[in-house]
Amino acid sequence: MQVAVVGAGAVGCYYGGLLLRAGHAGRLRPDTSVLSLQNGVDNAPRLAAVIGHAVIPVVVYVGSEMAGPGHVRHHGGGDLAIGLSAASEALAQTLQAAGIGITIADDIDKTLWSKLIINCAFNALSAVAGISYGPMLEVEGTRNVVTSAVQEAVSVARASGVSISDDIIEQILKIPAAMPNQMSSTAQDLARGKPSEIDFLNGYVVRKGAELGIATPTNRALQVMVKLAERGKMSGQRK
Amino acid sequence: MQVAVVGAGAVGCYYGGLLLRAGHAGRLRPDTSVLSLQNGVDNAPRLAAVIGHAVIPVVVYVGSEMAGPGHVRHHGGGDLAIGLSAASEALAQTLQAAGIGITIADDIDKTLWSKLIINCAFNALSAVAGISYGPMLEVEGTRNVVTSAVQEAVSVARASGVSISDDIIEQILKIPAAMPNQMSSTAQDLARGKPSEIDFLNGYVVRKGAELGIATPTNRALQVMVKLAERGKMSGQRK
Repeated sequence: MQVAVVGAGAVGCYYGGLLLRAGHAGRLRPDTSVLSLQNGVDNAPRLAAVIGHAVIPVVVYVGSEMAGPGHVRHHGGGDLAIGLSAASEALAQTLQAAGIGITIADDIDKTLWSKLIINCAFNALSAVAGISYGPMLEVEGTRNVVTSAVQEAVSVARASGVSISDDIIEQILKIPAAMPNQMSSTAQDLARGKPSEIDFLNGYVVRKGAELGIATPTNRALQVMVKLAERGKMSGQRK
Repeated sequence: MQVAVVGAGAVGCYYGGLLLRAGHAGRLRPDTSVLSLQNGVDNAPRLAAVIGHAVIPVVVYVGSEMAGPGHVRHHGGGDLAIGLSAASEALAQTLQAAGIGITIADDIDKTLWSKLIINCAFNALSAVAGISYGPMLEVEGTRNVVTSAVQEAVSVARASGVSISDDIIEQILKIPAAMPNQMSSTAQDLARGKPSEIDFLNGYVVRKGAELGIATPTNRALQVMVKLAERGKMSGQRK
């Protein structure tokens, strides 16, 4: 029997696990395409290792938020960049027909890292201060912090063998004017008391930098500030 | 194309919504069985109205918790009671073969309400005090509150045309000795900062009681205490 457990918590995982052990549940067909639409640069291989099935990385350029149960609010953007694979052309056609702007990226690592570097620039600052991109950049010194975070991340990317455009900092500094009211996904996670992705954003640059012998003091400070804000919220909660 | 969005947040709902509008995603086959394994007595019809597909109510008797990502901890129990339907016999066989104790309930309303009444007895107290079932019942006065909550809920159930066993209070008062270390699902929700089900447990008895002209002061107090605890946690969080 084919079984899908939707919204699995402690009860769904228990029964889903028993059904899986009995040979049902969670079976991906060999021709199923699995796409990862998360921030970060190494989700596809990590997910593939867990599920034992190829995963196609996708880079997401959308401003959206959950405005309530079953209600998603679209702030702008919506394009996707999808990695090369045998299925990517057919997937792109399906997505395009649904009104989704899509490119098949011939260098998906460059695309993933460029998005990661945008996340490293803005996510932590927006989250810790609870501030949207527009006013954020008006605060004195912010531009310097953003520039340092980007420069560190670019150094780590290039030392990892990933090509990054020379004008990335100029491109990144234009984003707040284009989406002044956007709060980062990390800010949305923090406001909801959800664990943030920060260990896979600035935290990834810090880890990768340590491996490569590249100093990343700005990214480390941004990562740690988000971790502290998360902890502060949790200890404010009753156990 | 068949599309499933897994772990949908603001991004997944946005793209899933566009794909659904384009004719993909979320299509249940006519012969798909949908089961609801949630606490509360009216989830099946409410879910059926949303998805436009019959839903089979299931009553769950398990103590389990999420011990971490991908790790469910089983504390005890595990039996299910499933409502009558054309598919129930085949479903019961599949579940039984997976090691799940299952009965097909000929009076599922009685079964749902009997479980609801257990939830009304213990969930709120365990949640607000952060206490497990064993020590809870040792505190002076707790037995009286539990008994009142059960008596109110039984009155509402019977006035709703649902048959409830005469010895339900004796059966319920035996539960803490059988699962002394269990925290209620409401306690687990509160500890995680998740919205609780309380409006569909004690809160359901309060609403239904108001419709039927039956006083439910104990259930109202239990419901409101959980709501206050939820609010207290939220206002302790940074926005």
